[in-house]
Amino acid sequence: MKLATAFTILTAVLAAPLAAPAEAFLFLLAGFAAKISASMTNETSDRPLVHFTPNKGWMNDPNGLWYDEKDAKWHLYFQYNPNDTVWGTPLFWGHATSDDLTNWEDQPIAIAPKRNDSGAFSGSMVVDYNNTSGFFNDTIDPRQRCVAIWTYNTPESEEQYISYSLDGGYTFTEYQKNPVLAANSTQFRDPKVFWYEPSQKWIMTAAKSQDYKIEIYSSDDLKSWKLESAFANEGFLGYQYECPGLIEVPTEQDPSKSYWVMFISINPGAPAGGSFNQYFVGSFNGTHFEAFDNQSRVVDFGKDYYALQTFFNTDPTYGSALGIAWASNWEYSAFVPTNPWRSSMSLVRKFSLNTEYQANPETELINLKAEPILNISNAGPWSRFATNTTLTKANSYNVDLSNSTGTLEFELVYAVNTTQTISKSVFADLSLWFKGLEDPEEYLRMGFEVSASSFFLDRGNSKVKFVKENPYFTNRMSVNNQPFKSENDLSYYKVYGLLDQNILELYFNDGDVVSTNTYFMTTGNALGSVNMTTGVDNLFYIDKFQVREVK
Amino acid sequence: MKLATAFTILTAVLAAPLAAPAEAFLFLLAGFAAKISASMTNETSDRPLVHFTPNKGWMNDPNGLWYDEKDAKWHLYFQYNPNDTVWGTPLFWGHATSDDLTNWEDQPIAIAPKRNDSGAFSGSMVVDYNNTSGFFNDTIDPRQRCVAIWTYNTPESEEQYISYSLDGGYTFTEYQKNPVLAANSTQFRDPKVFWYEPSQKWIMTAAKSQDYKIEIYSSDDLKSWKLESAFANEGFLGYQYECPGLIEVPTEQDPSKSYWVMFISINPGAPAGGSFNQYFVGSFNGTHFEAFDNQSRVVDFGKDYYALQTFFNTDPTYGSALGIAWASNWEYSAFVPTNPWRSSMSLVRKFSLNTEYQANPETELINLKAEPILNISNAGPWSRFATNTTLTKANSYNVDLSNSTGTLEFELVYAVNTTQTISKSVFADLSLWFKGLEDPEEYLRMGFEVSASSFFLDRGNSKVKFVKENPYFTNRMSVNNQPFKSENDLSYYKVYGLLDQNILELYFNDGDVVSTNTYFMTTGNALGSVNMTTGVDNLFYIDKFQVREVK
Repeated sequence: MKLATAFTILTAVLAAPLAAPAEAFLFLLAGFAAKISASMTNETSDRPLVHFTPNKGWMNDPNGLWYDEKDAKWHLYFQYNPNDTVWGTPLFWGHATSDDLTNWEDQPIAIAPKRNDSGAFSGSMVVDYNNTSGFFNDTIDPRQRCVAIWTYNTPESEEQYISYSLDGGYTFTEYQKNPVLAANSTQFRDPKVFWYEPSQKWIMTAAKSQDYKIEIYSSDDLKSWKLESAFANEGFLGYQYECPGLIEVPTEQDPSKSYWVMFISINPGAPAGGSFNQYFVGSFNGTHFEAFDNQSRVVDFGKDYYALQTFFNTDPTYGSALGIAWASNWEYSAFVPTNPWRSSMSLVRKFSLNTEYQANPETELINLKAEPILNISNAGPWSRFATNTTLTKANSYNVDLSNSTGTLEFELVYAVNTTQTISKSVFADLSLWFKGLEDPEEYLRMGFEVSASSFFLDRGNSKVKFVKENPYFTNRMSVNNQPFKSENDLSYYKVYGLLDQNILELYFNDGDVVSTNTYFMTTGNALGSVNMTTGVDNLFYIDKFQVREVK
Repeated sequence: MKLATAFTILTAVLAAPLAAPAEAFLFLLAGFAAKISASMTNETSDRPLVHFTPNKGWMNDPNGLWYDEKDAKWHLYFQYNPNDTVWGTPLFWGHATSDDLTNWEDQPIAIAPKRNDSGAFSGSMVVDYNNTSGFFNDTIDPRQRCVAIWTYNTPESEEQYISYSLDGGYTFTEYQKNPVLAANSTQFRDPKVFWYEPSQKWIMTAAKSQDYKIEIYSSDDLKSWKLESAFANEGFLGYQYECPGLIEVPTEQDPSKSYWVMFISINPGAPAGGSFNQYFVGSFNGTHFEAFDNQSRVVDFGKDYYALQTFFNTDPTYGSALGIAWASNWEYSAFVPTNPWRSSMSLVRKFSLNTEYQANPETELINLKAEPILNISNAGPWSRFATNTTLTKANSYNVDLSNSTGTLEFELVYAVNTTQTISKSVFADLSLWFKGLEDPEEYLRMGFEVSASSFFLDRGNSKVKFVKENPYFTNRMSVNNQPFKSENDLSYYKVYGLLDQNILELYFNDGDVVSTNTYFMTTGNALGSVNMTTGVDNLFYIDKFQVREVK
């Protein structure tokens, strides 16, 4: 096995330089990783076009997201096992960069653990503009003074480490006095750090995972941390808390006004199985986060959206609260049929708070809104194949994007005629069927049925063994989706979807509700034929339905 | 269409007697319902044996659960449309009685709405021992002085009505001054009333559904209600709150000690799609319910458990907190392939609070425990086909219950050998395959995979059109299930399952976690061949696996 061989070699490399300076070691490792990468090329599944995937090997949580203002470069790090397509130690911080948040360039591994049985676990990045840490001198541009705060995991403990970069985030040196924070625990991880301007302090959230506790620490220098408070036992608990994050999110209605959002990941034990992300909206006073209410809110209703992290800083033209999640689920991530890599990141999302989210006809709530960031330079023309049309059973609408790349966008604005009486016995659906071009028996079906009043997705119509057999790969999911407007007896709904080879991101009503799910069809059988049908006449009015390819 | 004809006749019956005394009207109706019942007998699916189903027609929420201490009789009412197998108005309170909480006897309709476009919506029953309402005289045994509190739904409003019975719960008379509670709302429903001994008052919880508010009222006489407080915006909100219930639940560790539990149903918008039940644990002082914490807790992790209601009173030998839920999901309930009835109730469950629920190795939580009440007089012998066995891939264990009734119980106690190293690439499962006796290509698969660390169910392996096509009928679900003990490098798990024709109830670790799901196989293809397999050698130790038929 090629993978086994690679592992043996890397183990040797890793074992040797433990006594050598960290810089030399990382340099060696980076060169080595590049070599493996070139030799592993026999892919067996279609690689997403606009979602980041590692060149080869295993990836999970996004880490250390930051923006280099000097070079106008976005940095994404990630939990990475280059030696296998399943999780394992030694676990590294992989690295990629982007100019546009859509196209990513692979970079050498950024942070390595010291031992083979250990991992450089999840964490975050800060830009230490004012050199509070003392790691930098004047030769380093303040905008590139980046410090990573991460968890060093060994079988004995989880401790918080810091590492700094003198080359703008490509290679890192470990602080000699690590750990900067330890709690004599094997379940203390995922530090996420931000700068809190009012108190001129660094603030860290970190998970005491199995205590269901997000601890909040403060620091002047990133080296010495003081426990300020804990946000504990909130929302849905599941098995454990992971990957917390606290960020100020502007409101959609008035971007100068913002509230604080606490993100918490849980795994396993999500209500729909496995992993998911929840969030809380509230206030932060520099030491304590307090939620406005006791609601449990779900970040993404799909099965493949976990370990969300937000960027430390951004190019403000893109927004101030941007985040990336891991687009998989621990229940089945090790068996997903891709090779020589496993797992993708979600698109970058811009978050805002919709303070007038219409949860039902009588109540407005405050709700996280997510919009995809997608810079597509090369897209086909929109195939606008239904506009101002009332659907009937006899007429279905078809488009065959015969040379489809397998990466598609669609926009659907539809309305339900509320004066229509429908028998409860009729499955009153509007369905979209995205079929394989080579084999139309493989397809994704999604749509809306009036009495369920939810948007559905069925990703189970595939001949891929994993899809047919893995009992954790939930085939069907649905999302409660409310109309965004009602007029002239028509209730309007909006859906934007991006299908990218094997990931579907769905945004309802401009991102008020989101659902991210992977899907897997036989390699080469790109989805590209699109069919729109209904189960009942004169119920669905199509304001707009258009599709285009992304190349 | 037979159903259409029945509806027309009933409409005529209903339209006529509006001016007549309610008693006469109900008597007429009861006789009529019995007649329809006899004429609708061409069943097309297998009827559950130990789960209550209506003889014919549509059923949803359980209502008015109480126990007649005089006649030792349990009463179950339910939302009922006798005229069709889908929901529709006029909507009635159907009725059934039981001596043992397992076998139910159909009774004539108990409460009817006044108009064809209206419904006697969900509500509860109390025994007015002390005749606080003044409805009873000394000829009525105090133990049979039952009063129903229910929602009268019309297109214009939802108002709370009361009706009393002078014959022990079979026929009801409407209070002449109804409504007893109104709020000028179309979204105010599901009153659940109990007697609060310390203040000598009736307490009602009712849902202001689209305000996400459970209002708490008090009364001396069931006729005049005073708003005391509201429990609002808690947990998962979804689209709306329904079917609240507040009850004192004894702790498992010390049954003399108890806490208050607030149950709330939400639909649609459950995290796993459609309908589900959540609960909150706290204190009640006679006017206010306060949750101990801000946790969101799920009553049942399956897709078919909604509108849970608890009994007003019980035979204490069965427990003090007993409840029944509707075993379906609004996302697909109208399309479930049974005829001439639709929907089943769950088994009756006995609830307690496990104050030492081990949520993970580090944390104990307070958690609702549910145990099934099942009085089976006629069960086959236990087929004990694996005891003190370590599973291997080469050896699978089979039992063929060749004359199976399609109703089965199983008990599985298994342990994972924690010293075994398993490659992440191996699907390290223990699987149970319950196959059709006529056609083994139809089967339920359930089991546990070590790295997912959750128990899974796959109900999608069926040739039934509904299962194959309805995109809301989630085929696969899973439940985070923790070991109940660990010793000698073995972590032990326990599962009890009851398969009843088309409903599977799963109880993990004696009911710490529960999952209820319907399933549908081709009519006549009873599940009865059981196969136990593993994907990896020497990992699973089977302490006990036994199966038996229920007749």
